[in-house]
Amino acid sequence: KKTYKICCLPGDGIGPEIIAEGKKVLAAVGKKYGVGFECADELIGGAAIDACGNPLPDGTLEAARASDAVLLASVGGPKWDTTDPNAPRPEQGLLKIRKELGLYTNLRPVQIFAALAGASTLKPEVIDGVDMMIVRELTGGLYFGRRERFYDEDGAGADGKPGQRAYDTLEYREYEIERIARQAFDAARKRRSKVSSVDKANVLETSRMWREIVHRIHDAEYPDVELEDVLVDNAAMQLINRPATFDVVVTENMFGDILSDEAAQITGSLGMLASASLGDGVALYEPSHGSAPDIAGQGIANPLAQILSVEMMLRYSFDMADAADDIRRAVTEVLDEGLRTRDIADGSTPAEKTLGTEAMGDEVAKRI
Amino acid sequence: KKTYKICCLPGDGIGPEIIAEGKKVLAAVGKKYGVGFECADELIGGAAIDACGNPLPDGTLEAARASDAVLLASVGGPKWDTTDPNAPRPEQGLLKIRKELGLYTNLRPVQIFAALAGASTLKPEVIDGVDMMIVRELTGGLYFGRRERFYDEDGAGADGKPGQRAYDTLEYREYEIERIARQAFDAARKRRSKVSSVDKANVLETSRMWREIVHRIHDAEYPDVELEDVLVDNAAMQLINRPATFDVVVTENMFGDILSDEAAQITGSLGMLASASLGDGVALYEPSHGSAPDIAGQGIANPLAQILSVEMMLRYSFDMADAADDIRRAVTEVLDEGLRTRDIADGSTPAEKTLGTEAMGDEVAKRI
Ligand SMILES: CC(C)[C@H](C(=O)O)[C@@H](O)C(=O)O
Ligand SMILES: CC(C)[C@H](C(=O)O)[C@@H](O)C(=O)O
Repeated sequence: KKTYKICCLPGDGIGPEIIAEGKKVLAAVGKKYGVGFECADELIGGAAIDACGNPLPDGTLEAARASDAVLLASVGGPKWDTTDPNAPRPEQGLLKIRKELGLYTNLRPVQIFAALAGASTLKPEVIDGVDMMIVRELTGGLYFGRRERFYDEDGAGADGKPGQRAYDTLEYREYEIERIARQAFDAARKRRSKVSSVDKANVLETSRMWREIVHRIHDAEYPDVELEDVLVDNAAMQLINRPATFDVVVTENMFGDILSDEAAQITGSLGMLASASLGDGVALYEPSHGSAPDIAGQGIANPLAQILSVEMMLRYSFDMADAADDIRRAVTEVLDEGLRTRDIADGSTPAEKTLGTEAMGDEVAKRI
Repeated sequence: KKTYKICCLPGDGIGPEIIAEGKKVLAAVGKKYGVGFECADELIGGAAIDACGNPLPDGTLEAARASDAVLLASVGGPKWDTTDPNAPRPEQGLLKIRKELGLYTNLRPVQIFAALAGASTLKPEVIDGVDMMIVRELTGGLYFGRRERFYDEDGAGADGKPGQRAYDTLEYREYEIERIARQAFDAARKRRSKVSSVDKANVLETSRMWREIVHRIHDAEYPDVELEDVLVDNAAMQLINRPATFDVVVTENMFGDILSDEAAQITGSLGMLASASLGDGVALYEPSHGSAPDIAGQGIANPLAQILSVEMMLRYSFDMADAADDIRRAVTEVLDEGLRTRDIADGSTPAEKTLGTEAMGDEVAKRI
């Protein structure tokens, strides 16, 4: 019997509650397809800081490297919020595991479940047909460039008075842009064959290089794919104005962070969106939403994005497309029957029934 | 008779057409209030590149410095698009005049004209009551930090092969954050007394410094104003999710570029939004939209954002609140009567009549 090792990272806030449901559904898939999934929990984020002062302990990284895939829930919370540059922060754990595993491609599919279309703050005719894939570069740019804060004896205050200064560096290298561009064009070929490359080439040097390289790769290797350049400020507008016209959107790390969350919100159901972070080795899967510390521990969090991150894992890491389809079908059925966690309950269907985290996981698992 | 000198910068695309209507309305105001407005056109952007190879000729800068206010239309167009780091670009003219005049505060009001509420892609109940002021830092950050592109013999290609590298620098100094924070808190005191400060403090050092300084200024000088911190990715979501809950939003240059355009699009009528760029001397006023090269020269562009930038000029540079109110009233009347340029025409009222650029300017001017 085929067996896969899954490194599970519950993290903070609602993380432990939702990852349990992800595992539950994975177990159901394993049973149906005769595949073993061995899940072992490791520390990351605030939980890891509390346990050992380090948001990504060496043991976690080793376990991740030795696994066939990593399933992450969420990190962060007000408990560890600080502006002290030297204090450990939960997010460092996430950034470090992305970097260490070389997860340079972040795939964020943005789709609407018919049963939840009403949850969007956008008009139904505007979100009708929304189906895009945001391809975010994940290991470069401002996230990983050199940064510093220092006290400047002359220059940082007004009129050259002493004061603090800080900088972050947005840096890219040619091969980093080449490989993410290829990921985007490859993804487009399996979809509607259109790529919108987002940059700020009228201001940034990294963006001008980005645009040149994306076009070179396009012209040489993917001339069959439609390519458009969109300035980031315009992209932020067009996502609201004509979201259904986007197919694949490719962009650098920070722009991708902002635009992927904007695009997610357009669906109105952030609690339904998952993401995959891929590199040349082990991949990592997580919900697009955060750790929701305000509702942690109450058993009411929505586990569906976590469950859909398991769907992506089956698809991308284990080539189990049928099993992945099963999960998507099960989630769709559950929603169509009116079952909702609190965050997606809106009274729009008479069949609506509000469930807790565990019950929602059970409903999906039993439909696999 | 009091006389003001206005430096007019028509720029590119629809710029010359819409600025003519701004001047027309300004003349009507001058007549009514017995004030002289002397308008003189200067070159900027692509037009300046074509005329003399420089997107901001010295003569333009001198004229701007010697004026009482600068009225800009728009710059840029495909004709001057290039990824060549050494070629002049229209946007450099805009960035340079902002820097040279020390225009560190960009005020972008986002409001809905009742007659155009239907134009938003958001649901009416979501945009009902939207009224925010985006305060964008305009002379710092990635826009003005050190940037470079170079060929690296070892390191930029995959596996250390030779290749290109580029970087941009996001830099801030203490006094730059202090002064923009004060602008935001001052603006909030004249409004609903709430400031949302947007940063990415979980990743960027400049953001952690930003957050510290904003809080220090708040606690020491503006404890009466409500202050919330919002991460930039979350801000991009909340603008769509609960736009009416924002009052003043303050953020650094690049985040402000993205979020102010996103917020503008939420209204559905970008052609209606103006902005003011203020410093310690002469101020600059411009529409929030771009140069729309696709419709340039056809006499169909919407001049209302340009006209509303004249409203802001009267308010902020000349302390002529009554005249500013006249313009806003005139624009509101014109819209209420169903008069529309093509971009805001949608057949939603039987009284709708579509006008060209000049006719729209005439309608506003005659109601002053
Ligand atoms: C938690 C944070 C560092 C992270 C990011 O900015 O990448 C998150 O917002 C995300 O998008 O995965
Ligand atoms: C034209 C461009 C350089 C400019 C900017 O990014 O600041 C524009 O988008 C704006 O917002 O005024």
